Amino acid sequence: MEKGGKKMLTLDKVFEAQTVLKGIIRETNAVRSYGIAPDCELYLKPENLQITGSFKVRGSAYKIAMLSEEEKARGVIACSAGNHAQGVALAAAKNGIRSLICLPDSAPISKVEATKGFGAEVCLVEGCYDDAYAKALELKEQEGYTFVHPFDDENVIAGQGTIALEILNELDNIDAIVVPVGGGGLISGIAYTVKQIRPAVKVYGVQVSGAPSMYNSVQHGAVECLPSVSTIADGIAVKQPGENTYALVSEYVDELALVTDDEVASAILALIEKQKMIAEGAGAAAVAAVMFRKFDLAGKRVVAVVSGGNIDVTSLSRVIDRGLRNSGRSTSLLIELIDKPGQLKEISRIIADCGGNVTGVHYEKGHTESVNGCFLRIEMETRDYEHVHQITQTLQNEGFKLL
Amino acid sequence: MEKGGKKMLTLDKVFEAQTVLKGIIRETNAVRSYGIAPDCELYLKPENLQITGSFKVRGSAYKIAMLSEEEKARGVIACSAGNHAQGVALAAAKNGIRSLICLPDSAPISKVEATKGFGAEVCLVEGCYDDAYAKALELKEQEGYTFVHPFDDENVIAGQGTIALEILNELDNIDAIVVPVGGGGLISGIAYTVKQIRPAVKVYGVQVSGAPSMYNSVQHGAVECLPSVSTIADGIAVKQPGENTYALVSEYVDELALVTDDEVASAILALIEKQKMIAEGAGAAAVAAVMFRKFDLAGKRVVAVVSGGNIDVTSLSRVIDRGLRNSGRSTSLLIELIDKPGQLKEISRIIADCGGNVTGVHYEKGHTESVNGCFLRIEMETRDYEHVHQITQTLQNEGFKLL
Repeated sequence: MEKGGKKMLTLDKVFEAQTVLKGIIRETNAVRSYGIAPDCELYLKPENLQITGSFKVRGSAYKIAMLSEEEKARGVIACSAGNHAQGVALAAAKNGIRSLICLPDSAPISKVEATKGFGAEVCLVEGCYDDAYAKALELKEQEGYTFVHPFDDENVIAGQGTIALEILNELDNIDAIVVPVGGGGLISGIAYTVKQIRPAVKVYGVQVSGAPSMYNSVQHGAVECLPSVSTIADGIAVKQPGENTYALVSEYVDELALVTDDEVASAILALIEKQKMIAEGAGAAAVAAVMFRKFDLAGKRVVAVVSGGNIDVTSLSRVIDRGLRNSGRSTSLLIELIDKPGQLKEISRIIADCGGNVTGVHYEKGHTESVNGCFLRIEMETRDYEHVHQITQTLQNEGFKLL
Repeated sequence: MEKGGKKMLTLDKVFEAQTVLKGIIRETNAVRSYGIAPDCELYLKPENLQITGSFKVRGSAYKIAMLSEEEKARGVIACSAGNHAQGVALAAAKNGIRSLICLPDSAPISKVEATKGFGAEVCLVEGCYDDAYAKALELKEQEGYTFVHPFDDENVIAGQGTIALEILNELDNIDAIVVPVGGGGLISGIAYTVKQIRPAVKVYGVQVSGAPSMYNSVQHGAVECLPSVSTIADGIAVKQPGENTYALVSEYVDELALVTDDEVASAILALIEKQKMIAEGAGAAAVAAVMFRKFDLAGKRVVAVVSGGNIDVTSLSRVIDRGLRNSGRSTSLLIELIDKPGQLKEISRIIADCGGNVTGVHYEKGHTESVNGCFLRIEMETRDYEHVHQITQTLQNEGFKLL
């Protein structure tokens, strides 16, 4: 997108994108959510159920469809280890053209396989994301590929805007749409579209506190680049927003807020338990913002965009564990013992009497106060914090030393 | 349902149920599934996304709506620790009547809370399910409640049959519907309805090998009662099918098959990874049967009913772990070492060189062959069985003793 490219985004493009995307993407139906946020009327826009498991295919499919025949003949190139890669791969395949995705060679094998599975060629580049990005630009120059930017491109943004058309078409009288923000392509498309059609509807953006690039940029009034990012929401772990997305967000988004990784983990868990849905970290960020009241939404009719569901199951296990700990439903106790018979029996009895369910026991010697001391770590399932407190209190009352 | 009650089930009832259920239940849209069963055109009927997280609310809501005003005034009673409890509770609340659910006092606190959350009173009964069942019948006699049977009732069965109406209405030219079977209410409703409207469509039933009550009964030509059941699919862990459901299944179901718990775990994992959907064990049983080719479905257009998604997250973690192990994506190695410096370093190097990702190390003395021996357990993430084989082979080639 060239300088001044922001003006090239028009509502016509978004409507055109909607037509182009028919037959390629799924029109995801909003889902009324009970129990996640009792103080507002919450709907989820489940783009995790989108083809490729993420909204990204909308932008890349429209972008690719709009290429000239000559550009199509030369193929497209992109750099991504995640949702954008799969979106570009599928969109290229649907258009019958060649796609090449540059990935750092450290990318998880599952993502590489998924990208190949959608029909792309994969170029593994030694090093990190930045090295893969540089390689993609180099190949673009050498081979004449069209580079498909993950967010800072007016056609990509227009494609993401189709989500707003679907929401406004399906739900009447909504007050607000809450959207996760990484590079800003998704929220730019949604905010621009909403404000053209129903300007009274608020558009709120959510970043994670470990990657607040757009948040900081808007606060300080200029595009900023973070030295590093760290979050479980890897889909929105972006160091620097786009020039165009920054301008669109500044103009059309009502408010931005941050959520923590722990809040995101709780939202992932809530979506599993209440909605039977898998969201990735980025996908759960907007839900986290609603759950933890980052915006003034009480009594309002609200749509939270669940942007994607591509979380690998190993991470999912870890997130579930973390969510259980955060809500007091699993607990780990470290107890210092004098090494004499019957201690474990006594502790087991107390926990059982209190209704805790022991799931793990580790017993080890260590540098305790007493020479005969040892450490006992107990893992257990509990009901909530109050239950945890009751168990620890009882153990302490019976003379055990908790660390 | 009285004796001979089978005749009371009519297609009219199923259509009536569909009308009655409007505004109470969600009409769940079938989802085309790519990647789970590449050799057939698979659709999922996602009743895990149903209100209450399971199809059960259909049957109980129709049953309750059909009660006389006098019966309604006296309220309803049911016995269940699971989906039926929540279905009855919600259906009663929607009809503005009282519901009492008897649960064994060993029921998980989460299920008790969920049932209360839908508006039911809960009666905790000391003992097991059978004790709670006896108590429910006793209270029914004493207090005049109407007992809502979880499956062996023509109105409950008619309510479940509405799923078939939705499938036939939404999808043309389907060849088969695959349905999980516990007591048989769900498949009775679906099979009866399908065979009245489009008899050419096959209806296949799936039980787990740890609870094959309907499967055995149909094989032997008479209702059988299992002495015990054991499966991760607790929603279909039923010792004895109903008299009426047995008769309906015998007449209308084309074929029954069994799946193992490991196959169910793999199906749960596939639904998470490919569809971003949570299914409980019972909910994934039909998908497991399709994945593991229990019926002749190659090239066919098939609907698998995902009956529910109410799995507690602790079980979910365990199922994910099991699924990862079953597919070679996580592995545990036990290595016998001579206790000398540098062994762990050497093993770590070999695993890293092979691309395995170590996630846990446990090191302990034990009764090894050598006095200086010890055991090393390594947990790691791997790509697949071939990758596991490559790592173990390399370790063995370098002289390590794997147990």
